[in-house]
Amino acid sequence: MLENKNPSKTSISSLGEFALIDHLTKAFNLTQKSSVLGIGDDAAILDLSQGKTVVSTDLLIEGVHFDLSYMPLKHLGYKAVMVNLSDIYAMNAQPTQITISLAVSNRFTLEALDELYAGILLGCKNHKVDLVGGDTSSSTSGLTLSVTAIGNVKEEKISRRSGAKENDLLVVSGDLGGAYSGLQILEREKAVFKVNPNNQPDLSNYAYSIERQLKPEARKDVIELLKELDVTPSSMIDISDGLSSEILHLSKASQVGFHLFEEKLPIDHEVIKICEEFKLNTTTAVLNGGEDYELLFTVAQKEFDKIKNHPLLSIIGHACDLGGGCQLINGLGQQIELTAQGWQSFDEA
Amino acid sequence: MLENKNPSKTSISSLGEFALIDHLTKAFNLTQKSSVLGIGDDAAILDLSQGKTVVSTDLLIEGVHFDLSYMPLKHLGYKAVMVNLSDIYAMNAQPTQITISLAVSNRFTLEALDELYAGILLGCKNHKVDLVGGDTSSSTSGLTLSVTAIGNVKEEKISRRSGAKENDLLVVSGDLGGAYSGLQILEREKAVFKVNPNNQPDLSNYAYSIERQLKPEARKDVIELLKELDVTPSSMIDISDGLSSEILHLSKASQVGFHLFEEKLPIDHEVIKICEEFKLNTTTAVLNGGEDYELLFTVAQKEFDKIKNHPLLSIIGHACDLGGGCQLINGLGQQIELTAQGWQSFDEA
Repeated sequence: MLENKNPSKTSISSLGEFALIDHLTKAFNLTQKSSVLGIGDDAAILDLSQGKTVVSTDLLIEGVHFDLSYMPLKHLGYKAVMVNLSDIYAMNAQPTQITISLAVSNRFTLEALDELYAGILLGCKNHKVDLVGGDTSSSTSGLTLSVTAIGNVKEEKISRRSGAKENDLLVVSGDLGGAYSGLQILEREKAVFKVNPNNQPDLSNYAYSIERQLKPEARKDVIELLKELDVTPSSMIDISDGLSSEILHLSKASQVGFHLFEEKLPIDHEVIKICEEFKLNTTTAVLNGGEDYELLFTVAQKEFDKIKNHPLLSIIGHACDLGGGCQLINGLGQQIELTAQGWQSFDEA
Repeated sequence: MLENKNPSKTSISSLGEFALIDHLTKAFNLTQKSSVLGIGDDAAILDLSQGKTVVSTDLLIEGVHFDLSYMPLKHLGYKAVMVNLSDIYAMNAQPTQITISLAVSNRFTLEALDELYAGILLGCKNHKVDLVGGDTSSSTSGLTLSVTAIGNVKEEKISRRSGAKENDLLVVSGDLGGAYSGLQILEREKAVFKVNPNNQPDLSNYAYSIERQLKPEARKDVIELLKELDVTPSSMIDISDGLSSEILHLSKASQVGFHLFEEKLPIDHEVIKICEEFKLNTTTAVLNGGEDYELLFTVAQKEFDKIKNHPLLSIIGHACDLGGGCQLINGLGQQIELTAQGWQSFDEA
């Protein structure tokens, strides 16, 4: 798909670095008032004089964070943007600009990179974010994407990881475990495909989970909802590594413990079905499966009436004394201590 | 050197991602008033309410931008910071923060990464820049570094690429061709080493050029000098790809041509000697060899008295009508059109 065996495809070496950047970025317009100058100089120029600025950066590496055998390049571009915007939303901020750096080997054609940038453009448009800079390089192996996102927030609205107080409610957006379940399906189909390339899998029963894995959406809507409801989370984090790991981050930064109620965990019925099929414990998938990019946050108890029964939000527990640690409480009232078993990038594999 | 065959070395997989980030960044303190919160949340928090903000990003990839067989990791860390700060200075701005993302394979030990971060720390300290964020990941092959730099500048002091006017003087800092000459020496010694690993080369005659390649310095001093002299360049760019390529960038962005005088090019005597040794044309090395990280800028003629005869600065030409193109004028008065033959990242190799 990627390799330039088709003479109608364009080798990127035929363009040179600067023409390639011009080509890939010509569809991107500046829309933010704070974007003074975008791509084309040594640096972008921004006017960030209003409020506070938040900055986050992420790497996505082929063979570590994504597998191009089932990840379409357009989805990858979209996901790369979402992963970073999710970090900006997790500060209760509005993303305004991104930079994208890209390293590719010559096996990628210009048309392949166009697909990637179509996804990046869609992500920028959907979230009203300007692409203002980047770097493009060859790579000796595979595709590497590095995204830096910049956002804006009024000082009094910032939600750090460190602000949770005892008795605060623990809330999560959307539902959990979908991205992990989708990954199980995709890995299985990849293995089947290797044995029988003519197999035409029917994946329609897994559409939701596969989309959660391949095309996650950063929760702009949740940040807008919180603004509408006039709720500022006392602490917030996005779920990239798994619920367990993120709760432990909030606990460490805020110096509180948490009680998490198993029966309150929001799980889509498709995720439950996939877990049954793979003989996985659903709660384990939710606690340790990452990449859902939902928002996990705490709010003071007095905000309960504002957030209760909202379809986007689930109250899954509350903060307690640090000495109690972080405990999952199951249907029988048993406490199980949470441990971080999320995705470990440095496992010896 | 890098591989963990020594039991006294620590495998990075023994730490996990978060402990690794803590370990590598614990020596970095925040020093900038604009750094509100550094590493440890979903995003850094910055107060960029004064002046304008400039942002630039660069990728450095093993096997493309550096060769660890002669690049010590500490130097690599330093250079990664310099390459990015150079872009900030090229806007006539002061760098204030950086983020660093790092992908490494398991062949790197913790001690190797400590060396890398020692270089990053030194770069941050020398330029009074705060490390405020990053990402750390495993890689399937080699080392990738992605740096984003943020800087601050008053609007009226910004030097874009696009501001050069006809008759402006063309000025370059320092001297040129050193990094390219140093690379020739290092590549030759690497080839010799492959044949005879016991060879002990005497590189003392090439010390300046090798340092220019391995440990370039972003020209903070030049930006400070321009401020002292009360000179704001009408346009500016840093020399990463070679003088020729950068002049063509200024020409395109500013819609002017340039006359460049061969005999005015500042070249260290060591570079001339190395070019003789390698039978290279010195002017070609200066025009097309990259990575000097000097600043190339234009100033109005009325500033001549302020900058003339300054040891850090050389007036090498002037801007002219766009129709005349960009011409090198040699000692015989012959004109040779400049072409971009700088480092091409996407050459088929």
